[in-house]
Amino acid sequence: MTITTPPQRLLCGPGPSNVSPGALAAMQQPMLGHLDPDMHDILLEVVDLLRDAYRARGAGLVLPLQATGTSGMETGLAHLLEPGDVAIVASCGFFGRRIAEIARRYGADVVEVEAPFGEVVSNERLLDALDRYPHARLMAVVHAETSTGVRHPLAELGAALRDREGETLLFADCVTSLGGVELDFDGFGIDYAYSCTQKCLGAPPGMSPLAVSERAMERVRARKIPVPYSLDLQLLEGFWVKRPVVYHHTAPILHIYALREVLREIALEGLENRWERHSNAGAYLQIELLERGLELLADPDYQLAPLTAVRIPDGVDGKRVQTRLLREHGIEIGGGLGPGAPPIWRLGLMGTNATIATADQLLGALDEVLADEPVLASAA
Amino acid sequence: MTITTPPQRLLCGPGPSNVSPGALAAMQQPMLGHLDPDMHDILLEVVDLLRDAYRARGAGLVLPLQATGTSGMETGLAHLLEPGDVAIVASCGFFGRRIAEIARRYGADVVEVEAPFGEVVSNERLLDALDRYPHARLMAVVHAETSTGVRHPLAELGAALRDREGETLLFADCVTSLGGVELDFDGFGIDYAYSCTQKCLGAPPGMSPLAVSERAMERVRARKIPVPYSLDLQLLEGFWVKRPVVYHHTAPILHIYALREVLREIALEGLENRWERHSNAGAYLQIELLERGLELLADPDYQLAPLTAVRIPDGVDGKRVQTRLLREHGIEIGGGLGPGAPPIWRLGLMGTNATIATADQLLGALDEVLADEPVLASAA
Repeated sequence: MTITTPPQRLLCGPGPSNVSPGALAAMQQPMLGHLDPDMHDILLEVVDLLRDAYRARGAGLVLPLQATGTSGMETGLAHLLEPGDVAIVASCGFFGRRIAEIARRYGADVVEVEAPFGEVVSNERLLDALDRYPHARLMAVVHAETSTGVRHPLAELGAALRDREGETLLFADCVTSLGGVELDFDGFGIDYAYSCTQKCLGAPPGMSPLAVSERAMERVRARKIPVPYSLDLQLLEGFWVKRPVVYHHTAPILHIYALREVLREIALEGLENRWERHSNAGAYLQIELLERGLELLADPDYQLAPLTAVRIPDGVDGKRVQTRLLREHGIEIGGGLGPGAPPIWRLGLMGTNATIATADQLLGALDEVLADEPVLASAA
Repeated sequence: MTITTPPQRLLCGPGPSNVSPGALAAMQQPMLGHLDPDMHDILLEVVDLLRDAYRARGAGLVLPLQATGTSGMETGLAHLLEPGDVAIVASCGFFGRRIAEIARRYGADVVEVEAPFGEVVSNERLLDALDRYPHARLMAVVHAETSTGVRHPLAELGAALRDREGETLLFADCVTSLGGVELDFDGFGIDYAYSCTQKCLGAPPGMSPLAVSERAMERVRARKIPVPYSLDLQLLEGFWVKRPVVYHHTAPILHIYALREVLREIALEGLENRWERHSNAGAYLQIELLERGLELLADPDYQLAPLTAVRIPDGVDGKRVQTRLLREHGIEIGGGLGPGAPPIWRLGLMGTNATIATADQLLGALDEVLADEPVLASAA
């Protein structure tokens, strides 16, 4: 069947979240050419605002990639790893595993430090791995593991690495944290971070904001083996930052407008206020879920706010619940992601949806649907 | 200075062109999640409409990449070349050279058959190169060379390759031709074609429609050396086409809406009518320019309609003319692209701008600005 107008959805899954109305309006503004001098000013403003959102004033390079978050992950691995390099990867969910998989594509010798879905790979275990591989090129963690709702203690890992004064770069997936969870690129000592636009930032999907430390950029400049052309950070720097601008690709102009708009909104709201808003909404949802007797997947000490993974109760048809929420309530939630994922729902309160009101709307719909599940109805 | 609302522009450069109003409106539609079952139907509709636009009903795979045209170029080279493979590349402008450069990044042995800017690399010379390298993996041409306004005789090249019954794949840059210049993926015998959304299609920049022949897909499936993960055609096929859908990346949903809308517009207008509209507008502009005593760069036998490169008359400050058109008339045109480019302006009439009325508006502004150029004013 051909759908002409897509139905309204409240997007409470692992992302995308609903787009900020300001960002949607920005996409209706007159489109400039990518080499227009007025466009250059907009590019520089986006980079400037992104430095604030990442707290990456001291980074060597900050820009949004003209592709989605997966390309942001790949860009970092492609630039920082050469065949035979050791990469220590914390793997406790879908995205940690993906980092390991892509690192292997680039010829790295991957040391995967694993933990079950829902747990964090402790910094102690990662540092033990570093003791065994002291010349590791990079250590990769997922700051906010979208597949499980677990937050990695990134500040502490950065501090420990800094104490060691080694050359191992700290690589962080910030796809579900940027703009919604405390993140301080400079302060934590991150060397490469990437995110997306469609989760806590509240823009549509299509770009991947990156931050690269100066010492990581030195590695990039020194490398001999070429990287994929369309992800080449030095060429991208020529377009986004340097003057005169150098043509590399035709930038996704309307997405850049949308990204600029949400970054301005974040600056107005205040980054810490925004973290707090996400934190409050997530904590409220989690308490309410627990009060209903539902179990959360994540270790409570490392529970993310924007993303909550809920174990599907025994005997409940998780897929049916998801479908009914979508079809009867217009609410999207996620299921488990990838092979080996436990039976879970993933509930997201991100961007404009990180509010108590949205949490209540989601909980109300969930109550209605769960009341019809035979197992839960008979238990009640 | 911070620009809040970008100024209105008539985009008559080499692209982007002005976005179709229907595509802009489509981007305001409710955003679905990338894994929403209703989204799957939209993805399949886009693929179906793209097959028509490319005339690629028989292709092994057709989909739009979640990145810009440069990534479309790279995706093809990354999948079809392995280190040591011979690639014959027709190089008579910026984009032919870029194909050669990227092919080298992937370890290919590149045979670059060159012609000066404004000329076409003849099929005869390409076939001579194939005689010397009969096991070449691919032969690459730019169907519509955006840097010079030259159209490659692609149908004839495809026919000649088919007559030889060899295994060399035909690779075609269709960035400035798809939707604006006669193109028949199946009929011409193309094996890999890529384009963009922001030129003759009239959508915003951000995606790259691809078409891959079945025999090229066989090569893709047989290759051993991994390709960049975010460009991996087999993984992308799992998301776009196969059922059940497999998560690969969060698709740029609003861009997909826009692309669907312009593809529907093309189906309504009729592909041949649209080619004719571009052809008429371009021919009109070119005749008018010649009547003003201006010289065109391209060999007249191979002049593209959507893109016209005009030689900057001796003594005229080309950059000043461009700036005045932009600042006084709100009209963007392009200059020469890349090292070695001759002094030219590049005028585009693409997508919604491929009309006599737009040509007249552009010519009127150009007349006004050129009348003030000292050299031309004194000659008059």
